[in-house]
Amino acid sequence: MRIIEAEDELRTAVSAARAAEKRIGFVPTMGALHQGHLSLVSAAKRECDLVAVSIFINPTQFGPNEDYDKYPRTLNEDTKLLAGEDVDLVFTPARETIYPEGCSTWVEVEGLLTRTLEAAQRPEHFRGVTTVVAKLFQLVAPDVAYFGRKDFQQSVVIRRMTHDLCYPIDIQVCETIRDPDGLALSSRNQYLNEKQRQQALSLSKGLFAARAMFEHGERHGDALHVAVQAVFDEYADVSVDYIAIVDPETLEPLETVVDRCAVLIAARVGQTRLIDNLMLEN
Amino acid sequence: MRIIEAEDELRTAVSAARAAEKRIGFVPTMGALHQGHLSLVSAAKRECDLVAVSIFINPTQFGPNEDYDKYPRTLNEDTKLLAGEDVDLVFTPARETIYPEGCSTWVEVEGLLTRTLEAAQRPEHFRGVTTVVAKLFQLVAPDVAYFGRKDFQQSVVIRRMTHDLCYPIDIQVCETIRDPDGLALSSRNQYLNEKQRQQALSLSKGLFAARAMFEHGERHGDALHVAVQAVFDEYADVSVDYIAIVDPETLEPLETVVDRCAVLIAARVGQTRLIDNLMLEN
Repeated sequence: MRIIEAEDELRTAVSAARAAEKRIGFVPTMGALHQGHLSLVSAAKRECDLVAVSIFINPTQFGPNEDYDKYPRTLNEDTKLLAGEDVDLVFTPARETIYPEGCSTWVEVEGLLTRTLEAAQRPEHFRGVTTVVAKLFQLVAPDVAYFGRKDFQQSVVIRRMTHDLCYPIDIQVCETIRDPDGLALSSRNQYLNEKQRQQALSLSKGLFAARAMFEHGERHGDALHVAVQAVFDEYADVSVDYIAIVDPETLEPLETVVDRCAVLIAARVGQTRLIDNLMLEN
Repeated sequence: MRIIEAEDELRTAVSAARAAEKRIGFVPTMGALHQGHLSLVSAAKRECDLVAVSIFINPTQFGPNEDYDKYPRTLNEDTKLLAGEDVDLVFTPARETIYPEGCSTWVEVEGLLTRTLEAAQRPEHFRGVTTVVAKLFQLVAPDVAYFGRKDFQQSVVIRRMTHDLCYPIDIQVCETIRDPDGLALSSRNQYLNEKQRQQALSLSKGLFAARAMFEHGERHGDALHVAVQAVFDEYADVSVDYIAIVDPETLEPLETVVDRCAVLIAARVGQTRLIDNLMLEN
């Protein structure tokens, strides 16, 4: 496994792979890797000839009062995990490679996709995400890129950006990986103490409650919402940011679910903000 | 010479060229081609193995009261001219290829580069330009792209965008081509009647007046500005938008020129808005 920091070296490696007609799979990450990330790597290993993983904690997707400074930095552990998965190439760019001096270009998806849900609390978040992903896509030039379903809105926004900017890249969204008790894996779970970790189960429990109702035929957005809220009512220390029943592509709230919906939740447990979601389909 | 409208066909042609290790040169245009465009094509022919020219009148770089509807559409003449230059590939994308349904992604350079000069009158212009160029760069995937110096600010903005987004594309800016009397070639010169064409000479005359002073040692921005304005004072029917003496990279106004400056002019002759510029260097 090669660990590459320099842009030139990356381009040489990618060009060689392309010349050899290798299918290149790419998993962009901010490090602090867990089984969720590794499931993306596994999918890439199955479907591609060369798998590249980037590790870059992107400053522009953190808000001014968010956790950029304390975000877990675990490069040694991360590279060991990736070597264990037989990843071909780990790209760890310097900040100046991604944001060169005088850098002032932004890639931004406009409209509801980046105004609703996460964006209400984090107005600059998605333009940070789309800008860094656009650059990483240029640098790695993959055939396929893998994202986790857990960051549902992010995957919708990136799919839109990729399509709109004519990137010839297939976006694969892989299912959320959960601990046995239901908690969706997240690098931010590290922030939780034991008591908070129990409270954090409110998110997945809320989603599972909605799923149970959906499986019993409930198709009213309001009713599904109430079912999720009822779970949170039992967790006084958890502060809900939003519970939303939306169209999975447009993110428009649904009064009535026809074929499918996404149930999205964001909540704070202590200082830690967590998100989770579930797709419900006929 | 192949004329290609479909994205798939373009990608196939470009991939084949790349597999054959051909250096790809790209000249993006809005058609209505003149010798200025053809000089870009010549440069590309000299330096590259495959030359692609795009013809696409980009709606998003026109303001609501600008000339999108009446912009000259001369595809037959354009392709004849390009065939005469032995261009390999002309890309004439449909609007939906560049702006697919639901398209909502913008590429935008922020800061002074896109707030000053042209942007004062045309606030949305440059984000239209950078967005379409970013897409065309993805589709054509050239090694080198050629732009005309006449659109000075555009070339600075595109260079910034290309660098910031990590496009592995060399941006070449080619000198402005002028008629023998000094008028910079522009597709919009077609709008001028004979009398207006004489008035339009005010722009190049103003620039040449500044150059003459510069060659005699004048280095004060104000004095160069006054010299240009003095020329326009003799053209009562020409309405000046701006005369600016700026740093060629940052576009900051210069009180005193050290090594070099760009003199930029925009003016209206009748309904036609024209721009021109000159680099002055020690």
